Amino acid sequence: MIYQHNFNPTISDEDVFNEIVEEKEYIGYYNLVNQETQGFKEYACSVKQKNIVVIGIGGSTLGTYAIYKFLKHSKTLTKQLYFLETTDPIDIKSKLEQVDLADTLFIVISKSGTTIETISIFKYIHSLITLDKENTLIITENDSKLNAYAKANSMKTFEIPKDVGGRFSVLSAVGLLPLAIVGIDIDELLLGAKEVHEAFFNVKNSREVYIRVLKKARFLTEYKNSFNINVVFSYSSRLEGFNKWYIQLWGESLGKVDVNSTRQGLTPIGIIGPIDQHSFLQLIVEGKRDKSVTVIKVDDFYSDLKIPPTRLKGLEELDYIDNIEFSSLIKSQADSTIECINNLNDIPCDVITIDGVSEKAIASLMYEYELLTSVCAKFMYINAYDQPGVESGKIILKEKLRNI
Amino acid sequence: MIYQHNFNPTISDEDVFNEIVEEKEYIGYYNLVNQETQGFKEYACSVKQKNIVVIGIGGSTLGTYAIYKFLKHSKTLTKQLYFLETTDPIDIKSKLEQVDLADTLFIVISKSGTTIETISIFKYIHSLITLDKENTLIITENDSKLNAYAKANSMKTFEIPKDVGGRFSVLSAVGLLPLAIVGIDIDELLLGAKEVHEAFFNVKNSREVYIRVLKKARFLTEYKNSFNINVVFSYSSRLEGFNKWYIQLWGESLGKVDVNSTRQGLTPIGIIGPIDQHSFLQLIVEGKRDKSVTVIKVDDFYSDLKIPPTRLKGLEELDYIDNIEFSSLIKSQADSTIECINNLNDIPCDVITIDGVSEKAIASLMYEYELLTSVCAKFMYINAYDQPGVESGKIILKEKLRNI
Repeated sequence: MIYQHNFNPTISDEDVFNEIVEEKEYIGYYNLVNQETQGFKEYACSVKQKNIVVIGIGGSTLGTYAIYKFLKHSKTLTKQLYFLETTDPIDIKSKLEQVDLADTLFIVISKSGTTIETISIFKYIHSLITLDKENTLIITENDSKLNAYAKANSMKTFEIPKDVGGRFSVLSAVGLLPLAIVGIDIDELLLGAKEVHEAFFNVKNSREVYIRVLKKARFLTEYKNSFNINVVFSYSSRLEGFNKWYIQLWGESLGKVDVNSTRQGLTPIGIIGPIDQHSFLQLIVEGKRDKSVTVIKVDDFYSDLKIPPTRLKGLEELDYIDNIEFSSLIKSQADSTIECINNLNDIPCDVITIDGVSEKAIASLMYEYELLTSVCAKFMYINAYDQPGVESGKIILKEKLRNI
Repeated sequence: MIYQHNFNPTISDEDVFNEIVEEKEYIGYYNLVNQETQGFKEYACSVKQKNIVVIGIGGSTLGTYAIYKFLKHSKTLTKQLYFLETTDPIDIKSKLEQVDLADTLFIVISKSGTTIETISIFKYIHSLITLDKENTLIITENDSKLNAYAKANSMKTFEIPKDVGGRFSVLSAVGLLPLAIVGIDIDELLLGAKEVHEAFFNVKNSREVYIRVLKKARFLTEYKNSFNINVVFSYSSRLEGFNKWYIQLWGESLGKVDVNSTRQGLTPIGIIGPIDQHSFLQLIVEGKRDKSVTVIKVDDFYSDLKIPPTRLKGLEELDYIDNIEFSSLIKSQADSTIECINNLNDIPCDVITIDGVSEKAIASLMYEYELLTSVCAKFMYINAYDQPGVESGKIILKEKLRNI
């Protein structure tokens, strides 16, 4: 008997791991954990302006925003960070009205150097204030036209390595520079990521990270036709930026056609607890069983904010909440949601507890999600690092704009 | 032959419409468009404080936030509106640090009157500043314990009618009062909603609204097993709050078990253009065909912000964007996305263009979405107005907190 097929063979955990080890040679994000940060920190120290405006979109801003949003109220930051991402004219105007342009550093971030949203806004700001080497920093690929522009105008530049994709670039100059400038400890960020990196790749020491990443990726991809949606339910408003970053990472990396022309992908949804207990939870509990749920808890908010035992006449039935810390309350709310979902017995649910509101904790989480995404892509036989689906829209837009 | 069945019969558009007309007698939101607003406006005029802090969650804040976020940069508002929704201690602290508590009106909104998040925060604020009739307004059901508390302390109260559900309450005191206080024209809001109301119910005049609501609801429910996700792709950052409101409306109203114990629901996803062209669009274009897409465009941003013809040496290839208004750019981006999706021929896509950044436009949009939700529920044989799935989590939480 002769048998031929074009099925994708089921791939073993070990083979996937070996492919990732191989990929590490030419996909740049894996090794960002070993970067030299001296250059970033020196530049950061030299920045005199009080306001930092990042002009960028997608992978150029989402990771930075995720970390900034997570940490900004828990650290004493000396500078304010703003993001100009969109072509919405009201958004551009209202954001720029908040800052003193004369006391602002503009950081233009574009991997290709020709991102239309970024260059439009950059041009607009040019009409408001002179942009020169004193107030402008460019982060782009070394051979982009934006880099040539920067050089011609003696503007300081930092490189986005060619082999680091936008949505995997948060731990490159893209994220580290703006974050270092506002006062976030970027060495701690890298340390957090590096711990996950080491634990994953040095399987001889401990297989804990290896096992949880591989196991989760295998489950999600094997059951992708039953549970095609993954809901990240983050129990802290600080994780709102992380949710958005996860949606891009997951959506753009995994929404692909595989080698057999089969559409792949897991639909990412990000919600916030306890707020979305009053919004999306009903659908999880009673709706169609097409969702897996990942609850993210924060172990330590470094806060002792407490519900005081104020007596509210008529509302005594709620006195059982008196003297409870808000951090205990929100963690109990997360636990109740988890218990409620697990009691249903037919919704896959996993729980990630991060240590606290710290650089290390958020960077560990993000790096592990990057690994998870790369591993899922291997199981699905797709390329996690391109985004061919968005090109045709860009061509249509160019045509439309030429005819305005 | 004798034939028996317990199928849900296919229901005609006319029957659904008649059921909605019937429902209008006991479901309160439909008739909010005919409300008297004098009392709201008089109270609003009497408010002296500069900061307005709404304490509430879910249906008590999402609609108000949607309208406020949409309009706040296009109107000259005299007061700032803040929302305290979550038990995240860092969120509570950082928001309260932004406001001068002595110059703040606190509006406590809870339909049941015993929402745990709301009462916890209310108690906490009690420990920071004396709350009395001068600086506290209560919006709740007339027979709630919170209402009794307010009366006992001579605090001003407004009623949430019993027959108006939280997520359908934006045009009741819940939304109209805070919005009137900060300077938004609530009569224009009601006018916008009323136009849709009249057009829908007075089918003798024009059947346009009737047809588009019924047609869309029928499509979405008939194809719900193929396209179980509805992505609202809003081309304006001003619509971020609308997206969140839509997610609650859709998720909580339609995520239900029907009379035959079949799980119903359409999973709502809200994304923002052009930002999420760099995030979620790849998944729409190349991922699994389980999504319908609704693009929302804003016709008039009332803005002449333009891309100036600044010459950037090296970036001349982008000079075709010179002199284009940002409002034209963002609309062209929406049109390009629509064309790109339609070219694929296998993704259901509809487009809503709202008139502009105005009270009437946002209220029309929201009211039509409420109607659409009610109609979808009829086609699915479910009750749009309850949320039984979230109760068990509340009971588990109570137990946990009693044991802390």
